[in-house]
Amino acid sequence: MLRIAVLGCGRIGRMHAANIGAHPRTRLAGVFDVSREAAAEVGAREATPVFATDEEVFASREVDAVLIASSTSTHADYIEKAVAAGKPVLCEKPIDLSLERVDRCASTIGKTSLPIMLGFVRRFDPTHRATKAAIANGDIGDVHQIVITSRDPGMAPAAYMEVSGGIFRDMTIHDFDMARFLLGEEPQTVSAVGSRLVNPALMARCEDWDTVSVVLTTPSGKQCVILNSRQAVYGYDQRVEVFGNKGMAISENRRAHDSVRFAAEFTARGAPYLDFFIERYGEAFNAEIGAFVDAVENATAPEVGFADGRAALVLAEAAGRSIREGRPVNTSEVG
Amino acid sequence: MLRIAVLGCGRIGRMHAANIGAHPRTRLAGVFDVSREAAAEVGAREATPVFATDEEVFASREVDAVLIASSTSTHADYIEKAVAAGKPVLCEKPIDLSLERVDRCASTIGKTSLPIMLGFVRRFDPTHRATKAAIANGDIGDVHQIVITSRDPGMAPAAYMEVSGGIFRDMTIHDFDMARFLLGEEPQTVSAVGSRLVNPALMARCEDWDTVSVVLTTPSGKQCVILNSRQAVYGYDQRVEVFGNKGMAISENRRAHDSVRFAAEFTARGAPYLDFFIERYGEAFNAEIGAFVDAVENATAPEVGFADGRAALVLAEAAGRSIREGRPVNTSEVG
Amino acid sequence: MLRIAVLGCGRIGRMHAANIGAHPRTRLAGVFDVSREAAAEVGAREATPVFATDEEVFASREVDAVLIASSTSTHADYIEKAVAAGKPVLCEKPIDLSLERVDRCASTIGKTSLPIMLGFVRRFDPTHRATKAAIANGDIGDVHQIVITSRDPGMAPAAYMEVSGGIFRDMTIHDFDMARFLLGEEPQTVSAVGSRLVNPALMARCEDWDTVSVVLTTPSGKQCVILNSRQAVYGYDQRVEVFGNKGMAISENRRAHDSVRFAAEFTARGAPYLDFFIERYGEAFNAEIGAFVDAVENATAPEVGFADGRAALVLAEAAGRSIREGRPVNTSEVG
Amino acid sequence: MLRIAVLGCGRIGRMHAANIGAHPRTRLAGVFDVSREAAAEVGAREATPVFATDEEVFASREVDAVLIASSTSTHADYIEKAVAAGKPVLCEKPIDLSLERVDRCASTIGKTSLPIMLGFVRRFDPTHRATKAAIANGDIGDVHQIVITSRDPGMAPAAYMEVSGGIFRDMTIHDFDMARFLLGEEPQTVSAVGSRLVNPALMARCEDWDTVSVVLTTPSGKQCVILNSRQAVYGYDQRVEVFGNKGMAISENRRAHDSVRFAAEFTARGAPYLDFFIERYGEAFNAEIGAFVDAVENATAPEVGFADGRAALVLAEAAGRSIREGRPVNTSEVG
Repeated sequence: MLRIAVLGCGRIGRMHAANIGAHPRTRLAGVFDVSREAAAEVGAREATPVFATDEEVFASREVDAVLIASSTSTHADYIEKAVAAGKPVLCEKPIDLSLERVDRCASTIGKTSLPIMLGFVRRFDPTHRATKAAIANGDIGDVHQIVITSRDPGMAPAAYMEVSGGIFRDMTIHDFDMARFLLGEEPQTVSAVGSRLVNPALMARCEDWDTVSVVLTTPSGKQCVILNSRQAVYGYDQRVEVFGNKGMAISENRRAHDSVRFAAEFTARGAPYLDFFIERYGEAFNAEIGAFVDAVENATAPEVGFADGRAALVLAEAAGRSIREGRPVNTSEVG
Repeated sequence: MLRIAVLGCGRIGRMHAANIGAHPRTRLAGVFDVSREAAAEVGAREATPVFATDEEVFASREVDAVLIASSTSTHADYIEKAVAAGKPVLCEKPIDLSLERVDRCASTIGKTSLPIMLGFVRRFDPTHRATKAAIANGDIGDVHQIVITSRDPGMAPAAYMEVSGGIFRDMTIHDFDMARFLLGEEPQTVSAVGSRLVNPALMARCEDWDTVSVVLTTPSGKQCVILNSRQAVYGYDQRVEVFGNKGMAISENRRAHDSVRFAAEFTARGAPYLDFFIERYGEAFNAEIGAFVDAVENATAPEVGFADGRAALVLAEAAGRSIREGRPVNTSEVG
Repeated sequence: MLRIAVLGCGRIGRMHAANIGAHPRTRLAGVFDVSREAAAEVGAREATPVFATDEEVFASREVDAVLIASSTSTHADYIEKAVAAGKPVLCEKPIDLSLERVDRCASTIGKTSLPIMLGFVRRFDPTHRATKAAIANGDIGDVHQIVITSRDPGMAPAAYMEVSGGIFRDMTIHDFDMARFLLGEEPQTVSAVGSRLVNPALMARCEDWDTVSVVLTTPSGKQCVILNSRQAVYGYDQRVEVFGNKGMAISENRRAHDSVRFAAEFTARGAPYLDFFIERYGEAFNAEIGAFVDAVENATAPEVGFADGRAALVLAEAAGRSIREGRPVNTSEVG
Repeated sequence: MLRIAVLGCGRIGRMHAANIGAHPRTRLAGVFDVSREAAAEVGAREATPVFATDEEVFASREVDAVLIASSTSTHADYIEKAVAAGKPVLCEKPIDLSLERVDRCASTIGKTSLPIMLGFVRRFDPTHRATKAAIANGDIGDVHQIVITSRDPGMAPAAYMEVSGGIFRDMTIHDFDMARFLLGEEPQTVSAVGSRLVNPALMARCEDWDTVSVVLTTPSGKQCVILNSRQAVYGYDQRVEVFGNKGMAISENRRAHDSVRFAAEFTARGAPYLDFFIERYGEAFNAEIGAFVDAVENATAPEVGFADGRAALVLAEAAGRSIREGRPVNTSEVG
């Protein structure tokens, strides 16, 4: 039983705390949040210790590893402290909004053999994993085109949007990681367009976009298109299409149930999609914890690590620059 | 070009007349109806001769074959006259409402080598044919269970229902033929239940049922379930499921188009089904004509003949008796 | 936290023990099995006490309630002992293979206010529940026809089949309960056909059938068809169709994931179905526990109780008699 | 009955000749091809006159209108001659490979009131039309993103590829028109990437691409992504997705039939897609002829005219330039 402490008691931290408590291979070693109230609430609900400071977490002998689910600006600090304390890390994306800070963190932690795993949870979803397996099995053949459709059910509150770091580092970053997971080759060029259609005023104020299309290409000519929207009224839209010279695999959306309806006005109407990420990727969040335990117990590199976190951020930065400069950007220009 | 005359200018006769006119292998040789007005209207629309009497049709040297789409009570007479005149026949189902009359017709026409084809059009539908092919290819293995769902979009007018001969001889007869087409073995027992749920008053007056479930079994133990309703608000419901020891094939409903819709209240809502039989089995009606021309030109037995028409009627009669007597009926008891 | 002990450590008992241990509202109070080895294994795995005798379970002050997952022949005894001990019961189906024993059990326990819940787990499946909700909401209108397709992926070992009590009491009993759940009216007649197609020799030896079709009717004329097979090579086939005068709802099969595949030989090939009942009804087994806790905590009648267990058994008995006597059987003839 | 002559007796000309002959509102007035052999063959098959020269076609008083299905290089000439002869035109895409020639043609024919209709057949497909209707009805709300997936089943012969004018003017041009049909606003920027993955050697020789992704944006910020491949092993892939603030509509692929298959290795495997354009757009080609007759008979502008042909060509040219120059291209730079 790996004893994991959770840093950050917001929505996603609360979910992780509950998952760790219920997982057969882990135990919740306690929680911390800069808001004592938030931490106390989760501590009570999960019947787990509440740490008064982050230092206590890193110093505790009851804590084997940490899961970082605090606000983005703290991620790099916490990673550095965890490594200094010899504790493996499972860190929510992104490592930081700034590539410079990510690189400083990398040089601080150096060539640690401690597992630093990044929370790109979609890699652990059974549906996307089956799509990946179809590539690995050779059923797709050479990959030619990938289409990743990723639309949130609705825009987060303005307060969140203002500090999110922008759509590419906050939302598309999952899709950039999915692209890298499936392409089997590093993207070389990034070409993006962005619009303000869902909430133009808010987006203008944030210098952000709520509707983007991004095209990635690799040196061998593979193409990957990412489609994002901050608001899909029909629910959380999470699809992936991988097209190759031998076939195609499509990750379709998953529904809450499979009762379909027929009436005078329609035939075979589907049930709602699983919504939102906590439901849609519930199985994946659990599998992610299992993979983290594997990495810690076997002292192996985690399936998705620090370098993957950095690579996704490079693509995010390139995409932002592509829109601002109105041209394709080579990843080598960014980092 | 086979020159075919059409007897009967009701809805289905009009459709056949148009199809024969447009078919690359046939020519419409003229039409006849006891209603001169109806015949005149079709004659004008199709620019084809209108015969004044049925005798004229059978006597005409411009007529190579006849398609019988008149009211059921005339079918056996016309078949006898056509055979006497040496003209091949494509006859809408059923041959007659009375098995006795069918048998008298059989003995009248004797062992004719003229093609007498029955209009069990569903055998020619591309979807059902692919399901049949899956059996023939061995992909299903031994057939264990068949489920035929057949529901009309709405009940025909009372005037029609009163002379229809009852649901089994009017509607289920198509499903009985489909069962025989797919089972590859003659049904032995027929067990039916019937309810009056759509229009109880009319059904009571007609001593008929609008909602029936029928179970057929064969000597080797194959089971076939038929589900009928006179009214499905979501449209013409035409499905077939064939289950065997190696797999299953399902004939799904066919839609008018494949644009699916998503909104705040639903996901992936399907388009309407093709509705009614003229649309749903449009391709099949054309293929049926082609099969008839094949039989005539090659002087071979038609794919579905007089004996098939009789066999379906036997099942219809057994089903009616099963409800009335509240017990399974052996087909040998009926005919 | 309701403290539940599990009686029976076979496949389904083990699953229940794990579920109770992980459920947020229950605690596993211990396990018992006539095989000490089986009990010890589960006790060790779940870190829970192992009771030496069933009496110990019923006597224990650490046990608030019992879950009966032992062999069928012990169910009625355990129910009687649990009631005597004042402990609520969640009992796997069937109560007993013999209606006489069920009735004796009923009279022994008398008018207890203790919750006696029957494990008809499918009622708690999100998909079937959505189908039921469509009826309750009025979206289906008056129910006219129900089709329940229930096929196991493969036949259980001969040793099990020989003591199973026959397909109707072992397998179809779930479908009889589903029929009652959805019909909203007690079935009145039962008409069944049965074949030996999957393993004819074994079925003959057991005087059982591996392939059955059953038709139920209610006094108001509703029809329900149940299709069972002991072996579907494509997986665990669990579908329900409810057809009414305003629309239709279909519980489709649920898949392990939603990655679909395309290749030169096919389009849109689906992933495997969830297989077998432990996977397919995993969510339902958990929801069932929650419903049991609700009944215990609120001292209300469980959603599915002793009378439901008896009613399903009556239908099973009627179905068997229908095949043996070759006629529809009225439920009043049986019980 | 509009009497239409067909210029060009290649694959698509032959199809049009047959369609015109069978259409209830048109008559085939004859055919012409620079290959007398090809023309003679179609003339014989369709029992229609064969013109010896194109001049004869334009001069004939038996010809009310012309359908141009000859090689692209002749389109503009034939349009000019038809207009000079006062004959309405239905012309296969593209008008010409050169925008300069298109503009010269435009100025030659001047402000003719004769219907000049362009053969963008997909606008007449029932599925795409239903998707368009969902926009027109307001069911989609404001359109935010469109995804057009268009993949051929296999690459045409090298001889054809060498004179095709390149993927954008030969293949994507249909998608550019679909984009314009659905966007309801002219695209402003075009950003394309292209790869040589299906047949690199041939593509290099032709300075062409077999795999392209194109992003269009409009002044109001709508985004449209087009995905093309010259080879999809699973068949002719023709999908359109329209995403807006109120919902989404997806034009799914259409199958040859709706029999789905289940076996030990898979569930619900779909039938093949309709393949190739003659089958897939069979209904559309007929509806297109009907729309042409409407325009001629009512002397109204055709639903898709010369200006639409030019606009699609502008997008094709911009896309090519975008790849060559590695930057987004504004349509105003091109034409």
